[in-house]
Amino acid sequence: MVERGLLIVLSGPSGVGKGTVRKALFEHEQYNLTYSISVTTRNPREGETDGIDYFFRSREEFQRMIAQNELLEYAQYVDNFYGTPIAYVEAQLSKGKDVFLEIEVQGAMKVKKSFPEGLFIFLAPPSLSELKSRIVNRGTEALDAVENRMAAAREELEMMEAYDYVVENDEVHLACQRILSIITAEHLKKDRVKHRYESYLEESE
Amino acid sequence: MVERGLLIVLSGPSGVGKGTVRKALFEHEQYNLTYSISVTTRNPREGETDGIDYFFRSREEFQRMIAQNELLEYAQYVDNFYGTPIAYVEAQLSKGKDVFLEIEVQGAMKVKKSFPEGLFIFLAPPSLSELKSRIVNRGTEALDAVENRMAAAREELEMMEAYDYVVENDEVHLACQRILSIITAEHLKKDRVKHRYESYLEESE
Repeated sequence: MVERGLLIVLSGPSGVGKGTVRKALFEHEQYNLTYSISVTTRNPREGETDGIDYFFRSREEFQRMIAQNELLEYAQYVDNFYGTPIAYVEAQLSKGKDVFLEIEVQGAMKVKKSFPEGLFIFLAPPSLSELKSRIVNRGTEALDAVENRMAAAREELEMMEAYDYVVENDEVHLACQRILSIITAEHLKKDRVKHRYESYLEESE
Repeated sequence: MVERGLLIVLSGPSGVGKGTVRKALFEHEQYNLTYSISVTTRNPREGETDGIDYFFRSREEFQRMIAQNELLEYAQYVDNFYGTPIAYVEAQLSKGKDVFLEIEVQGAMKVKKSFPEGLFIFLAPPSLSELKSRIVNRGTEALDAVENRMAAAREELEMMEAYDYVVENDEVHLACQRILSIITAEHLKKDRVKHRYESYLEESE
């Protein structure tokens, strides 16, 4: 029996660098990560392949998928729809692959509702205290910046509530290492390993 | 305000290599790990220093510590007592240091009772399935070994129940990397980071 993979959801405030961190993560080939392929109603661009870059679907088909609860979440940007197909995610998890989803905060909250067993990682801007000392050392003119950072911090605090882990994006390679540590640790949780032992013992009897 | 450290308890069946893994872990100096110093009634050996290698105490003093609940756990080996002093562990945690305790399964279960918020890591022998294929490839004479391994696996399954994580000791450096990943991940858990944000916001107001 193959052990079911993890659904890993990386999210965070816009501009925090989610896309950059995701790209860097996929360069670590020793990890069994699969990127979640989205469904979209937009037209393929030159060089894009259906089932690799996106699942390209008509607007009617997309509406049907919404109606039949076939999407973990979806959103509209300008005139086009984008969504995460449950069937694809499920197929990968069943094969034992960890599925990685990089997504806006609102979308992450939708995924959380239908997939609470997912691993929710909040990507946060560099640490507050580090920022404070940096700003204070720059002189008094930056006091406004401190205040702005504090206001943002209050918003981040509210947003991170629904997540399992918070990773600071101070440097991309450090953020990646932290995320990979989280994934490693999750696979070592007692209940997962116990399950592995149990299936092995059953198979051998 | 300093963030409180973690109490990390590494345990597992005897002979699994706890001591070797612990020594290798302490060579990773970038981690903020402090080894828990034990109290003992045995005499100091040449070169051993009180408060560094052990806290050397009289048998009467040790009995007093037991009576006043000053030990997280203790055990007797031959004629001597060994124990983990709560005061030392608490002092390190308050300073923000992660305290590392390598201990037998029975002792770990005692620590779990008085310190349930600790991080309990079970060190397990190399993976069952790997062992199986290795043994099967060696030929039929090893069938007994498979059976023995299965019996041991059943015991390990029961032992690991009270732990948070299970780490295979297939290779010492891999076991170390896994333990360091667990420690990293624990520090990134939402509640810990939230607490960090909150104390910073309070301090700055």
